[in-house]
Amino acid sequence: MPHIQLPEGLPGISSALAFRPEMAKPMRELAHVLLYEANSLSRADRELIATYVSSQNDCYFCQSSHGAAAACHLEGNAPLVEHVKRDFASAPISDKLKALLVIAGKVQQDGKSVTAEDVEDARIHGATDIEIHDTVLIAAAFCMFNRYVDGLATWQPRNAAMYAGMGKHLAEHGYMTSSVEMSTEALARNADPEA
Amino acid sequence: MPHIQLPEGLPGISSALAFRPEMAKPMRELAHVLLYEANSLSRADRELIATYVSSQNDCYFCQSSHGAAAACHLEGNAPLVEHVKRDFASAPISDKLKALLVIAGKVQQDGKSVTAEDVEDARIHGATDIEIHDTVLIAAAFCMFNRYVDGLATWQPRNAAMYAGMGKHLAEHGYMTSSVEMSTEALARNADPEA
Repeated sequence: MPHIQLPEGLPGISSALAFRPEMAKPMRELAHVLLYEANSLSRADRELIATYVSSQNDCYFCQSSHGAAAACHLEGNAPLVEHVKRDFASAPISDKLKALLVIAGKVQQDGKSVTAEDVEDARIHGATDIEIHDTVLIAAAFCMFNRYVDGLATWQPRNAAMYAGMGKHLAEHGYMTSSVEMSTEALARNADPEA
Repeated sequence: MPHIQLPEGLPGISSALAFRPEMAKPMRELAHVLLYEANSLSRADRELIATYVSSQNDCYFCQSSHGAAAACHLEGNAPLVEHVKRDFASAPISDKLKALLVIAGKVQQDGKSVTAEDVEDARIHGATDIEIHDTVLIAAAFCMFNRYVDGLATWQPRNAAMYAGMGKHLAEHGYMTSSVEMSTEALARNADPEA
């Protein structure tokens, strides 16, 4: 049960965003520019970074919703998302993304643990300053989103169809629309309109 | 030295915000609504929560700048700010703020460590649902800001006059203006125009 009286029927961060719309607005905008707007890092790579950090923070809602968004950008390759969460070093992803995930994992622990060598390694594999910056900020932002979702003890249903529907919506439309506040039933229908 | 080529002469988060203005906008707005806009929690209380979390994350820039803003709201009582950072339980602050700081400290570690008893204790001391929500989000947001500042290895000068000037500016004007990108010299003059 959530720690405070949040709107019912909305999963995870959606209930908290609906509770405090004045704070939801900048948080939605930040997620949208970090994960959805044009960037030399692909949407798949950015969602994988968000998913990995959320899994390191053990946030069920965020790793499930962003993992589903990542899988959508990867043409449904959910096993790759799970592989990255479990052991990205052995996953079939680029060396550049592996180097960025090393940085993201350090930021998740403590920003000060990122070393000049970590950053140099990312550069050697082709990462630009903007891509290194954005990786640090995506990792830092998910240390906020994860704590927000878990610190209020939001409702985080175990409902794979719902996360699939949410991931599809996020992958297609981004983070600005209020439709991440769709009901769990509508989200599940979104994943499979034939069902 | 910063990990990436940030604009020179701007301390801490200011250099990162100037590097990526499209991401700075929602982050400024979030800080402004959390710490400066009208709220039943005083600006002093909110800046103390931000300062405490930043000190727990060992972020020199954020604990110094927000500590200076808190001191401004407390009519210059910098020793109280230091007392809260060191051991808030014995500080001369309200029992309600102490209960909220317990929640903030748990969020800093892991959102899931906040218990129903922590929240009930805050309620007994008069905290509303919105105040509990805002405490969780301030603590979560500073887990982002701290990691952003430290993860890029931003320049964090040891310059008390600069932080005093920055704190005064933030306490008076909030977080929306670009003048947190004032030079260190201008900030130091802001603290003591006679100097």
